[in-house]
Amino acid sequence: MTTTELSLPPALTQVQLHDAFWSPRLEANRAHTLPTLHRKLVEVGALDAFDLPAYAERGLTIPKTHHVTPQMWWDSDVAKWIEAASASLVTHPDAALDAQIDDTIARMVRAQQQDGYLNTYFTAIEPERKLTNERDWHELYNAGHLIEAAVTHHRSTGKTSLLDVVERYVRFLSGVYGTGEGQRPGYPGHEEIELALLRLYHATGRREHLDFARYFLNQRGQTPNYFETEALARGDDPQEFWAGTYEYMQAHVPVREQSQVVGHAVRAMYLYAAMADLAAADGDPQLRTACERLWNDLTRHSLYVTGGLGPSASNEGMTRPYDLPNDTAYAETCAAVGLAFWARRMAALTGEGRYADVMERALYNNVLSGVSLGGDHFLYENPLESDGTHRRWAWHACPCCPPNVARLLASLGEYVYAVSAREVTVNLYAGSTLQAEVGGRALTLTQEGMYPWRGDIHLSMTLDAPATFTVRLRIPAWAQGATLNVNGEAVAVTPQQGYAVVTREWSAGDTIDLMLPLVPRRTYAHPAVRQDAGLVALEYGPLVYCVEGLDQRADLHALSLPRDSALDARFDPDLLGGVTVIEGAAVIDTAATADLYSGSPPTTRPALLRAIPYAVWDNREPTPMRVWLRERVG
Amino acid sequence: MTTTELSLPPALTQVQLHDAFWSPRLEANRAHTLPTLHRKLVEVGALDAFDLPAYAERGLTIPKTHHVTPQMWWDSDVAKWIEAASASLVTHPDAALDAQIDDTIARMVRAQQQDGYLNTYFTAIEPERKLTNERDWHELYNAGHLIEAAVTHHRSTGKTSLLDVVERYVRFLSGVYGTGEGQRPGYPGHEEIELALLRLYHATGRREHLDFARYFLNQRGQTPNYFETEALARGDDPQEFWAGTYEYMQAHVPVREQSQVVGHAVRAMYLYAAMADLAAADGDPQLRTACERLWNDLTRHSLYVTGGLGPSASNEGMTRPYDLPNDTAYAETCAAVGLAFWARRMAALTGEGRYADVMERALYNNVLSGVSLGGDHFLYENPLESDGTHRRWAWHACPCCPPNVARLLASLGEYVYAVSAREVTVNLYAGSTLQAEVGGRALTLTQEGMYPWRGDIHLSMTLDAPATFTVRLRIPAWAQGATLNVNGEAVAVTPQQGYAVVTREWSAGDTIDLMLPLVPRRTYAHPAVRQDAGLVALEYGPLVYCVEGLDQRADLHALSLPRDSALDARFDPDLLGGVTVIEGAAVIDTAATADLYSGSPPTTRPALLRAIPYAVWDNREPTPMRVWLRERVG
Repeated sequence: MTTTELSLPPALTQVQLHDAFWSPRLEANRAHTLPTLHRKLVEVGALDAFDLPAYAERGLTIPKTHHVTPQMWWDSDVAKWIEAASASLVTHPDAALDAQIDDTIARMVRAQQQDGYLNTYFTAIEPERKLTNERDWHELYNAGHLIEAAVTHHRSTGKTSLLDVVERYVRFLSGVYGTGEGQRPGYPGHEEIELALLRLYHATGRREHLDFARYFLNQRGQTPNYFETEALARGDDPQEFWAGTYEYMQAHVPVREQSQVVGHAVRAMYLYAAMADLAAADGDPQLRTACERLWNDLTRHSLYVTGGLGPSASNEGMTRPYDLPNDTAYAETCAAVGLAFWARRMAALTGEGRYADVMERALYNNVLSGVSLGGDHFLYENPLESDGTHRRWAWHACPCCPPNVARLLASLGEYVYAVSAREVTVNLYAGSTLQAEVGGRALTLTQEGMYPWRGDIHLSMTLDAPATFTVRLRIPAWAQGATLNVNGEAVAVTPQQGYAVVTREWSAGDTIDLMLPLVPRRTYAHPAVRQDAGLVALEYGPLVYCVEGLDQRADLHALSLPRDSALDARFDPDLLGGVTVIEGAAVIDTAATADLYSGSPPTTRPALLRAIPYAVWDNREPTPMRVWLRERVG
Repeated sequence: MTTTELSLPPALTQVQLHDAFWSPRLEANRAHTLPTLHRKLVEVGALDAFDLPAYAERGLTIPKTHHVTPQMWWDSDVAKWIEAASASLVTHPDAALDAQIDDTIARMVRAQQQDGYLNTYFTAIEPERKLTNERDWHELYNAGHLIEAAVTHHRSTGKTSLLDVVERYVRFLSGVYGTGEGQRPGYPGHEEIELALLRLYHATGRREHLDFARYFLNQRGQTPNYFETEALARGDDPQEFWAGTYEYMQAHVPVREQSQVVGHAVRAMYLYAAMADLAAADGDPQLRTACERLWNDLTRHSLYVTGGLGPSASNEGMTRPYDLPNDTAYAETCAAVGLAFWARRMAALTGEGRYADVMERALYNNVLSGVSLGGDHFLYENPLESDGTHRRWAWHACPCCPPNVARLLASLGEYVYAVSAREVTVNLYAGSTLQAEVGGRALTLTQEGMYPWRGDIHLSMTLDAPATFTVRLRIPAWAQGATLNVNGEAVAVTPQQGYAVVTREWSAGDTIDLMLPLVPRRTYAHPAVRQDAGLVALEYGPLVYCVEGLDQRADLHALSLPRDSALDARFDPDLLGGVTVIEGAAVIDTAATADLYSGSPPTTRPALLRAIPYAVWDNREPTPMRVWLRERVG
């Protein structure tokens, strides 16, 4: 990177989005997803659960109106809703929503134990099991989400009500866990608190949070394995661990020795995000190397073209290199959200654009697939092929994904820009306004364009006085022949680590025009990917495309695209809220006879192939879908 | 057909096999499979189970040496072993084996109840549940296998010891089941007894067995459904039937109204075999039409190219038309065995060669795949694609398949020929000698050749005096340009219903030379088969081919066969006991870069494709396998 200073995400208050592509999704998130989440949390009893500890503490029976037994992960669902809702308040003040958040936090204040402990399930339902099974029971995971909620709530509203709660809780936890006398050398089975503590450190500047995060990361995978110690203490046989292996939660070896992305995909992403953040905060080259090694493993062997990961339902995670089934792809929405977390931190750690390329891929494809255009239906698994029966649902027994997408979308500004004292980095192209102190001056940077439908991006500045600083503009790896003008004059695009870099004295009124040529692209998987052999995917800018049965007059498997067929991109304002479709001449296999088997190959007839962005699949009637299409060579 | 007289299988005593392809498999069956089966039946306690009823009857506790709780289907496993072993005695007298059979039958005699009932499980283990759940508990299924064993035992050895047992049992059952006063209008959940009773009728000529079989077939699927009546009588809720639907056992509508092959594949095959047999015996055109309708449904929509059927493990059976997954194909060995049963009866019923074509396909491919060349390892599922982990096993908790293959192989002579008073039909080409009374004379027909490796088949006759009769020689649908010589003179091959038909006065020393041109063939699936889109299978004569990883230097999915590539067939005497391999120039996708995704398609390098018969796959080291290969067009 060009400076040794880290570029960090701007505060949410520094970015305003006004983008033709993103703003409707963010508005659906605010107007439909957030109320849906809150209503569901009320319905299932997750909010009421914060009142149960008070009953339990007084020895009272939990009243019948609290009809649902809390689930172990409910606190995290509530926390994610607080995080998403708080972020939303920044751009869209809403007194009622603010009051809902305050009410929820007030319940948390009441539910917090004298010693700082805060967990509804293990206070009200199974207090005797408190802190006895970090491997499986999500206590530290829930704590992490409370911390993240507190940070976002504080940075978005200025209030400290939840921050105070979590600071007390963290003090309690840091007394329990550690390598000191009388402490337990434990760490969570489901990572999350590590990245949360690092966010808490960045928000408060308090080094004890950095230290506590470092402790959790360093302790992970040490011998003897804490989860075995803990199981023996419970009187359980460690061999009877249902997941069978500590790879499942990346606790098989210490983190600096890990080289392959393994196990539960969401856990892996949250861990690696924390590792990248700690590597940056500590300037830890060994940890950075481990992150880079893991990144290369993922992106070279196990990442879906949609930015999804974790093909297998049985472990919600990883299998073998190059194993990327399409119809049974698990590719959990939360895993792609986690990948965006990790990628953003890798981009900050290294200054390399390839990380933001993958972040963009995850955001524009697998993450967006997780929620309907209307914001009220959700996918947990995001397959790349469907027979028409895989549909978004209104709710799920394990509703981790909807609030995860919600908080990510509400925080999108953090992904568009990164800022340091002498540098502005533009990682995503989206209509927006950034306000930041750069080069010692107050900069307002305005970005305009119709990305990802069009590749011309216009940036303009206001500055209170001229200032010298660097602007870094990501040139995606797929963008061949990008051009750049500064104040109307051509500047050669010679990407450094994936960014066009312009350092100069900037003045108010200065403009930058970037042109990323957008054409439909054919994409091929490595031949080791069994499931994509002979197939081709279509992409356009950051978007992966798919075909839906509704748009074709044949079974999708009978459709094939000649390799030399011309592909056209055409914006259709009336389709799916306005999308660019890709069209081309294809052929359809047609039966020569009614026989099941024949010595003659199927004949073919011409067909118009029409592809839509994967991000908006399953937003019409139920219909089959495919990302990877048969290709006809020659 | 040319006569109204049915051609029936010859008795096993009438056919001797001496064939380069089949004899080694039959010898492995005799020398290895049969002893393996007997040893396993002893080990699990299935033979001892026949002693348990004696203990139970005397109110004694079952002794500890009888260490295994009998399973409900054990009697059928023992019966199938008796059937296979008895058939083996015909061609290979073996006093020890004969004694083992006699000992087993003696146990059955002792186990049979006073009233004729004979079932180890419901006598010794759960007598209070006897005859209460024909839907699930396999009582009539077990009875059917006992009957089949008795018929084969009697026809092979001339003994009546087991025949007497089953005649008593059948008398008991025909008292219980029927539409008369005090009878139960029941029928089996797992079909089998129907075809067994028809065999018993053919063997004994007793019409009551024909009538009882007809009763079972006519009663099936009638309203009210017997299984509901029976469940209510037990105090069970019929809605809680685990299989969910009566399609599972083809009891959803009466048999003459059935039009689609549904449910459990083995049950379906056994049912349809009995329907075809009854249609012939009764001259019942409605039943024949139902059989033809079901046959067309199977062969046009749901039959694997290997002659397997039933793609789904969850119901061990059928799903939707054109749903033929390769890697997850269940294609149970028993289902292909059952298809051979049905096909032989359809050929007899209609005189059409297309039925024997499918019979041959099942026998030469899916059935043989069910057992290793050594005769001591077995497949239950026969997928058409494997990653190398699907292997034959030494035994199985539900060991229905090994004895089913064993009894079929030991009875192969019944599939080679069919005989009536004025006609000999040659359905399979295999070195063999048939002795039969045809045209009023004693005929010895000798068949010689190297089929399926070579297509020249030589038949010669001895006759005690000249006689006029018809010889029907099946011309498989794949055989283009077959030629025929009778006594050295060319005879035009104009197949009638799939057979070359020669009617003349035959004399001792007459010869027939049939030439079926054998060349490697490319076979394509109907374009509606999603799983085979863009793929091609290779066949040679009756054999379906596959590629195994051992023979290729690439992942099988990376291999593709150009459509215009020449294919050679070469006999390799040292490979897998001697097989013809198919070879051709193919290409292998090769990575241009290490990237997981690339804008450039994989490059290709030339490769020699080598395919072996599917029948002998997984007879070397573990290795991936594929039947359907990627095809490269143009």
